[in-house]
Amino acid sequence: MIKINENYLKLPGSYLFSTIAKKVNEYGAAHPDKKIIRLGIGDVTRPLPKAVIEAMHKAVDEMADAATFRGYGPEQGYDFLRNAIAENDYKARGVDISPEEIFVSDGAKSDCGNIGDIFGVDNVVAVCDPVYPVYVDTNAMAGRAGDYDPKTETWTNLVYMPCLEENGFMPQLPERTPDIIYLCFPNNPSGAAIGYEELRKWVEYARANGAVILYDAAYEAYITENLPHSIFEIEGAKECAIEFRSFSKNAGFTGTRCGFTLIPKELEVNGVSVASLWNRRHTTKFNGVPYIVQRGAEAVYSPEGKAQVRELVDFYMNNARVIREGLAQAGFSVSGGVNSPYVWMKVPEGMTSWDFFDELLDRANVVGTPGSGFGPSGEGYFRLTGFGSAEATIEAIERIKNVFGK
Amino acid sequence: MIKINENYLKLPGSYLFSTIAKKVNEYGAAHPDKKIIRLGIGDVTRPLPKAVIEAMHKAVDEMADAATFRGYGPEQGYDFLRNAIAENDYKARGVDISPEEIFVSDGAKSDCGNIGDIFGVDNVVAVCDPVYPVYVDTNAMAGRAGDYDPKTETWTNLVYMPCLEENGFMPQLPERTPDIIYLCFPNNPSGAAIGYEELRKWVEYARANGAVILYDAAYEAYITENLPHSIFEIEGAKECAIEFRSFSKNAGFTGTRCGFTLIPKELEVNGVSVASLWNRRHTTKFNGVPYIVQRGAEAVYSPEGKAQVRELVDFYMNNARVIREGLAQAGFSVSGGVNSPYVWMKVPEGMTSWDFFDELLDRANVVGTPGSGFGPSGEGYFRLTGFGSAEATIEAIERIKNVFGK
Repeated sequence: MIKINENYLKLPGSYLFSTIAKKVNEYGAAHPDKKIIRLGIGDVTRPLPKAVIEAMHKAVDEMADAATFRGYGPEQGYDFLRNAIAENDYKARGVDISPEEIFVSDGAKSDCGNIGDIFGVDNVVAVCDPVYPVYVDTNAMAGRAGDYDPKTETWTNLVYMPCLEENGFMPQLPERTPDIIYLCFPNNPSGAAIGYEELRKWVEYARANGAVILYDAAYEAYITENLPHSIFEIEGAKECAIEFRSFSKNAGFTGTRCGFTLIPKELEVNGVSVASLWNRRHTTKFNGVPYIVQRGAEAVYSPEGKAQVRELVDFYMNNARVIREGLAQAGFSVSGGVNSPYVWMKVPEGMTSWDFFDELLDRANVVGTPGSGFGPSGEGYFRLTGFGSAEATIEAIERIKNVFGK
Repeated sequence: MIKINENYLKLPGSYLFSTIAKKVNEYGAAHPDKKIIRLGIGDVTRPLPKAVIEAMHKAVDEMADAATFRGYGPEQGYDFLRNAIAENDYKARGVDISPEEIFVSDGAKSDCGNIGDIFGVDNVVAVCDPVYPVYVDTNAMAGRAGDYDPKTETWTNLVYMPCLEENGFMPQLPERTPDIIYLCFPNNPSGAAIGYEELRKWVEYARANGAVILYDAAYEAYITENLPHSIFEIEGAKECAIEFRSFSKNAGFTGTRCGFTLIPKELEVNGVSVASLWNRRHTTKFNGVPYIVQRGAEAVYSPEGKAQVRELVDFYMNNARVIREGLAQAGFSVSGGVNSPYVWMKVPEGMTSWDFFDELLDRANVVGTPGSGFGPSGEGYFRLTGFGSAEATIEAIERIKNVFGK
């Protein structure tokens, strides 16, 4: 008789965003006159850049003509896109990466989730806390996380690295040595960004321990200070890291779906090329990104595309600035929002993240995301994002200042 | 120190199509005057239907306007597409399926490969032989296949069900009882199609043994006879089957990427809903199909789309007919090509599949696919496909008749 993967049964329900939706709907029904502003979303709202739209129209037309029609493409992505990525995201920053090390995919979420396939079940995994839940859940599904303890809201076999105000929201080298280390910078949810020195420390640690860093750089476009955009800007990282990138947050591809994973040829485990394992997975369980979408992604690197992406990012970052400055004026302790569209605030003393959620909804009619939804160390924190409209963001912050300002 | 998934090291190289390409390139270089015709491909060649093109242009325009822009969509697919599928592919054939049972994805290959995630490693897996290699390789990666025996070219822990001329290319109930049974009808590579009675036998067998049938119906659009298009046309299948479908071969989406998996709510293992497990995987490791592509897939079900898809399928099926009839006239034993774009022929007595490949390339300048590339029981067979142009197909068959005809 068929057996299911029992690890799935250990997963607690995933109720963060459904609970938020339920609370907001109930509040809206009870107060139909109130204008609710949502600043909790991690999704973009501006249209795709014009260069992307034009490229996709052109690609759709190519699909209408037998002479230019494209069937199965290379699973790893078309050369035109892999070349553009290598040139613009890496060589332009002094990182010598070849297009063959880049695997185009339908997004960083898929790749972050699937990368575990090529590693053994008996690896110790370290994650930041708070954390993007996909890292945790996919390791739980694979059987690497042990058991879920509902009391502590942690998994028995994961190494948690608390990122709190007192450590500048930076993970500290853990006591138990991990084999796989997830790092995400600029960070979701905290908006913290990592510097060269700090990242070098992690690369050295990973190399010293034979660990691999899974580096999620989906938000690198939001970096405004002098910080590494890629982990491969750090010497030695090619021997110990895999990097995930996305077109979701820079070019607005959340509903268009394209990202990529970079596995350097130098990354080997006992003489086995990790890229060759991923290549085998990618070509066996995946069939490439739509040609039309790859042409859209390529356009992100055209001169017009670059300018339009810059404009998009600046738009969201201006919202993040408004939120950050407004919250500070209202007396809140705030971080993020400088190299990230995410602003991470401390909730008032004595309140939980959910208490503050309720209060913010009730008194300011503003929706955010409770930090505890991202892990136990997120308790007492709250996430607001720059992805709303400029007007709504300003209004929301005015309301918050009126309600909570001292 | 990090450990890789050792199962990957057991995988033999995947050289079928690269070996074909190498041989063809070498032959072409040595004989630049010869016009080589490729009838080996499993990829479509005709442009996308006009209705799909129009829908995608419209969707691209929606992405250019903030008022109609789409960010993250439901990972399971938009309702407009799930409804169209439920209505047209199922309810229209008398199968009562609700849209919630349909999971839209980037293709049947991904889903067939990823479905194993939700099942335990300790399941016995049965596959047809010859077989679409993804079923075998993904189970090997997961550790369900045992070890690869290069002598027999089989995996020690898989149950192989030979499909040969003598059994009408139909798998027989295996001696060792499997927990997971992969069936693909119309079949790739043999082109064999299954009837209601025969499929009922499998449904009853699976139910009696608590097994689950993974039913790949990617080629159902090519059925011309009175045969089941979906396994759910068989009573009781909802308790024991999962179905995979694709827009690749009906509407030409091989480079546009869309398919879906249907898991009935009735399918449970010890009271656990299998659909709920897949939903968890789909929402954790996947982020939905591009909005633009889903609008294109929806257009497949419009009256114009349906007519255009019919035309496409008829075009390829006419090629398949030309191949099938021509080969028969040349004295070959031929099957497939009636409910499938694939024609499966026996190679001349005393030859291997690769011998025939070389001879066909050398004497007729025609490229096909050696049956042995699909498994040991494919030895002695050869696959030609209807996906070429009409003219090239006719010319290729004329050449074959001239060279091999008696």
